[in-house]
Amino acid sequence: MNNAPKISTISFVGAGNVATQLAIAFDKAGFTIGEVCSGSRKGSKEFSQQFNCAMKLNLAEMEPGADLYLICVPDDKVGEVAGRLPDVNGIVAHTSGMTPLESLNRFQHFGVFYPLQTLSKMKTVDHSEIPFCIEGGDEETSVRLEELASVISTNVSRVDSEKRKYLHLAAVFVNNFSNHLFSAADELLKDKGLDFELLLPLIKETASKIESLKPDEAQTGPAVRNDESVIGQHLEMLKNYPGYRELYKMITEQLTKKYHG
Amino acid sequence: MNNAPKISTISFVGAGNVATQLAIAFDKAGFTIGEVCSGSRKGSKEFSQQFNCAMKLNLAEMEPGADLYLICVPDDKVGEVAGRLPDVNGIVAHTSGMTPLESLNRFQHFGVFYPLQTLSKMKTVDHSEIPFCIEGGDEETSVRLEELASVISTNVSRVDSEKRKYLHLAAVFVNNFSNHLFSAADELLKDKGLDFELLLPLIKETASKIESLKPDEAQTGPAVRNDESVIGQHLEMLKNYPGYRELYKMITEQLTKKYHG
Repeated sequence: MNNAPKISTISFVGAGNVATQLAIAFDKAGFTIGEVCSGSRKGSKEFSQQFNCAMKLNLAEMEPGADLYLICVPDDKVGEVAGRLPDVNGIVAHTSGMTPLESLNRFQHFGVFYPLQTLSKMKTVDHSEIPFCIEGGDEETSVRLEELASVISTNVSRVDSEKRKYLHLAAVFVNNFSNHLFSAADELLKDKGLDFELLLPLIKETASKIESLKPDEAQTGPAVRNDESVIGQHLEMLKNYPGYRELYKMITEQLTKKYHG
Repeated sequence: MNNAPKISTISFVGAGNVATQLAIAFDKAGFTIGEVCSGSRKGSKEFSQQFNCAMKLNLAEMEPGADLYLICVPDDKVGEVAGRLPDVNGIVAHTSGMTPLESLNRFQHFGVFYPLQTLSKMKTVDHSEIPFCIEGGDEETSVRLEELASVISTNVSRVDSEKRKYLHLAAVFVNNFSNHLFSAADELLKDKGLDFELLLPLIKETASKIESLKPDEAQTGPAVRNDESVIGQHLEMLKNYPGYRELYKMITEQLTKKYHG
């Protein structure tokens, strides 16, 4: 059994938000982007132009010579894609929060390279601040993937599949669900002719506050003060927004129970 | 009827988070802090020492010579405090999101000076970025309060009592409720021996993303992708957290309805 290769050429399966942002970081750091293959021909083409690399229409045609095959597809597609990739000598790793390491165990060297960040094609983030959660099928692969992540980020740790799932779940709460609350606020203000931009300093400070305080210590508001009059007025103001009203009631009940329970 | 005075001396009713942060800003900007009176003797004492000003134990004893009396008490206490303050010539304004302007209409000059920010004694924010929402009982008072806010902030607008209530409600969603989601994530990770700090870059980016995208455009995650497998796994992982499980279900249903309804 040969050793996990040192990584210099990286091929991508998938050409979406995660693939694009990682390729930007690797490209900038001097790695060679080998090939790309994605379910979207248009996506592959744009990616291959952006990173000056070859594109393949079928996974089975991918060249076996890359050092790393990075599978950047939605969680529920990793298994299927891994099944169709040819046998390769390089490391095969996925970037999914919810998919176990074992989904790739038919390959000689396999691992997980999970960026705990919300990535969009059109919005470049500071890659050095992306937390990378690494897992390898063997120690050498883990080291190779850690080395790679450390080239582009200062925040690299080893996380096993079970713990990674909980990070993903927690990420849904702080990112997807917080963003839903932002949408609710946006809708409420728009209906009153108010500009959502007025809330941006508050949202920024809400995120910044928990860098120095624990979330439980940072909590303020009518539920924590047990201010029934304000809560009653808020519920009345939400009477034409049944979904947001139910959400307000549920979170307020949870906060009241926690702080006055 | 005499004119609303130009503001140079400011007295505070309340010595909590809002009073302290505003006094820091006014003090720095060269205003005189006249007196303080709060329900907490300890709070008043600390405030009077921090800002080198007089303290009064009873509202009725406050000197009538200040140009502005700023009532910085919880929403449900404004009315009562306003009733006990002596008749003064200066402007009387409160800092409450939910309290109507009219609660202060027994005074000659009255208004609202609402900072749309989460303020804590121990965490100084960049005052220049606090949005101030101003309302005055007459035009001259509005102008005086606008001028005052503009000395310490670049973000000042006039907002009437009805709209201010909706800003306050929206602030509860983006601040208090988001912070509850951060608490949930903190608890989930702690139980798995994981460090909440891993989520800080994601939380920061979640807040930053909506500076350039609308919340609806920034939304990602399993509900938007309609990934039933991941949603099912998350619900299973939450089986020992009934409150968070209900919250997950409600928000996921709202997102699914919105993007796939």
